[in-house]
Amino acid sequence: MKINTNFGNIAENYLFSTVASKLAAFQKEHPEREIVKLSVGDVTRPLAPVVIAAMHRAVEDLAHAETFKGYGPDRYSYGYPELLDAIRSSYARKGVEVKREEVFISDGAKSDLGNLLDLFSAENVVLVPDPVYPAYVDANTMAGRKILYADANRENVFLPLPEEGVHADLIYICSPNNPTGAVYDRAGLKAWVDYAKREHALILFDAAYEYFISDPALPRSIFEIEGARDCAVEICSFSKTAGFTGVRCGYTVVPDTLCFDGFSLNRMWARRQATKFNGASYIPQMGAAAVFSEEGEEEIRANIAYYKENARIIGDCLDGLGIWYTGGKNSPYIWLKCPNDMKSWEFFDALLEKAGVVGTPGSGFGKNGEGYFRLTAFGTKENTEKACRRIEAFCRG
Amino acid sequence: MKINTNFGNIAENYLFSTVASKLAAFQKEHPEREIVKLSVGDVTRPLAPVVIAAMHRAVEDLAHAETFKGYGPDRYSYGYPELLDAIRSSYARKGVEVKREEVFISDGAKSDLGNLLDLFSAENVVLVPDPVYPAYVDANTMAGRKILYADANRENVFLPLPEEGVHADLIYICSPNNPTGAVYDRAGLKAWVDYAKREHALILFDAAYEYFISDPALPRSIFEIEGARDCAVEICSFSKTAGFTGVRCGYTVVPDTLCFDGFSLNRMWARRQATKFNGASYIPQMGAAAVFSEEGEEEIRANIAYYKENARIIGDCLDGLGIWYTGGKNSPYIWLKCPNDMKSWEFFDALLEKAGVVGTPGSGFGKNGEGYFRLTAFGTKENTEKACRRIEAFCRG
Repeated sequence: MKINTNFGNIAENYLFSTVASKLAAFQKEHPEREIVKLSVGDVTRPLAPVVIAAMHRAVEDLAHAETFKGYGPDRYSYGYPELLDAIRSSYARKGVEVKREEVFISDGAKSDLGNLLDLFSAENVVLVPDPVYPAYVDANTMAGRKILYADANRENVFLPLPEEGVHADLIYICSPNNPTGAVYDRAGLKAWVDYAKREHALILFDAAYEYFISDPALPRSIFEIEGARDCAVEICSFSKTAGFTGVRCGYTVVPDTLCFDGFSLNRMWARRQATKFNGASYIPQMGAAAVFSEEGEEEIRANIAYYKENARIIGDCLDGLGIWYTGGKNSPYIWLKCPNDMKSWEFFDALLEKAGVVGTPGSGFGKNGEGYFRLTAFGTKENTEKACRRIEAFCRG
Repeated sequence: MKINTNFGNIAENYLFSTVASKLAAFQKEHPEREIVKLSVGDVTRPLAPVVIAAMHRAVEDLAHAETFKGYGPDRYSYGYPELLDAIRSSYARKGVEVKREEVFISDGAKSDLGNLLDLFSAENVVLVPDPVYPAYVDANTMAGRKILYADANRENVFLPLPEEGVHADLIYICSPNNPTGAVYDRAGLKAWVDYAKREHALILFDAAYEYFISDPALPRSIFEIEGARDCAVEICSFSKTAGFTGVRCGYTVVPDTLCFDGFSLNRMWARRQATKFNGASYIPQMGAAAVFSEEGEEEIRANIAYYKENARIIGDCLDGLGIWYTGGKNSPYIWLKCPNDMKSWEFFDALLEKAGVVGTPGSGFGKNGEGYFRLTAFGTKENTEKACRRIEAFCRG
């Protein structure tokens, strides 16, 4: 049996394990010191009551023969029509029309982002930003694809635009971005759509953080941009929208207008999912459908507002210190320039030792992350305020 | 962008859609006729009370900040230790020892059966039985792999053994089998393990129906066979064990002793899952952990006993009619030789028209299925008895 030896080319990413081991070593040496973590990329707020109620009802459905649910509806790749229609309504509120057959329910955006690659030749050239969410790179390295990097940096406010003379086949765009928190405006996304159409390329648009956008001038879906239905799929998640990181539910929109080499991507994805997937759990699907109800939207907006207030607190703190950063306004991530031209890990060590605050070194996300640092808004308000007071004391001290 | 054109080689399988459309046409023409379906491959019994209670508790955990759960534990590919240990106990009862790090929790066996293929080169030769569960073939056709078929037929009681001079790299074994219900004994599995080791091949052992085995002489896990830890992974599911077809939870055991070309399959699978998956939902995981509790085992055995009584009723009916069949004793599937040498679809049409009973034509599962027919035990007892009386009248009339 021959192994897929491309696995040997995947870089080991020690970012989060190094953060964890440095923290553990520090705590062992200084058991008296209380540490505040602004490094967490996971949500912490409990689920909205309307979602909890819907999931209890769904569990109860499975307890009785009359309401029992087995495999999901195979007509819609196992997605329940009530969830598909709730998602379509959410799109309609953004002025985007999608059909039931274009919405595919899954257990999460990470699965779809990885599994969609089954549809494409290994010969395609992939374009990702640097800094980058590592799974984009690893999933393509596994398949042996060539990867190009678009430089995101302070000059372009971490929002790279297409470069003349560079050809790519698969383009990853994450907006609001992880790790930088930067958000493309309409003109920025239009430039990528035009480029993709010119290059006969496909955009994989990761919209996992779209619910953090409150500026009405900023697009929340790639499909708000003219021409995107011919060159983009959009991958969405309830993880950050509604705190579903443990519940697991996401969805991907594959327009039925997408056609390459005479193949309909929509039909290919339906076939891929029918062959290697059996649908998302009924219980999360019912919880997710409740997210987009009127009551649900109100409740999840309260959770998002809580996190955004944390982001504002961090932003104000950095503004007061004169530290440059992106994100934090329409995103749960704050991406800051390390003070005094410190390197990422240098700042990490200093902040941990002097201030007892943990963040994530930007260099772990790519070469352009060197000298930058990521803070997240997913903690409690109390801890966020405490961390900011300590950062201020550290920077002014 | 270049498409994965292997998708053009996947055969359209019209089996279940043709069954559905023939049934719909018949019902439209004969609205007065009541039809009994023994074609359903999905479970129908509600979940065990202990599982329902565990899932209600899990939903409630997500409602409160103190008990909220985000991403699963990344140390174990997002599987919760209580579920991993419950699975290890279930293996221990079969005399098989597995480590925590060897058990990978997922949303179901179909996902794992498909996604495991990421680990292997497209140049491998795949061996599947004929008749076969179509997803094995489609998932490999998508990746461009060459597929060989091992003939399963009446002569070998639908349990093919390795053939001299045939080389394969990846070997699919499903026991108890879907669609034939045939179950390998220890000698049969030992022959496959010996063959795999000789050929430097890997067995993908699909154990989705293992809980239907009541004969203590029959192996329920490939790891009951000496040497299997060096040449097999085992893919398991709560779908048929505990009625989880809508809940979604499965697991795959990848021994840490498996090594090919210097790569540890266990580490490769962990890396694949960390890159393209974010874990199974917390709620199904807690439900699944309850399945393997003492109370849970008792409750799920009652559901399985219900289905097995249906299988016995069908088997007795066929015995009385002198019709040859496999399965039905340690499996929910009954695979019968069509009476009077009828072809599969001929028997389907006749049974629908004359007896008002629907089953699945064996020819839909491969060329060796021609002349055979699949009945399932997943209906109600009342319908199963009714169907049998009608089959008797049809065959004797």
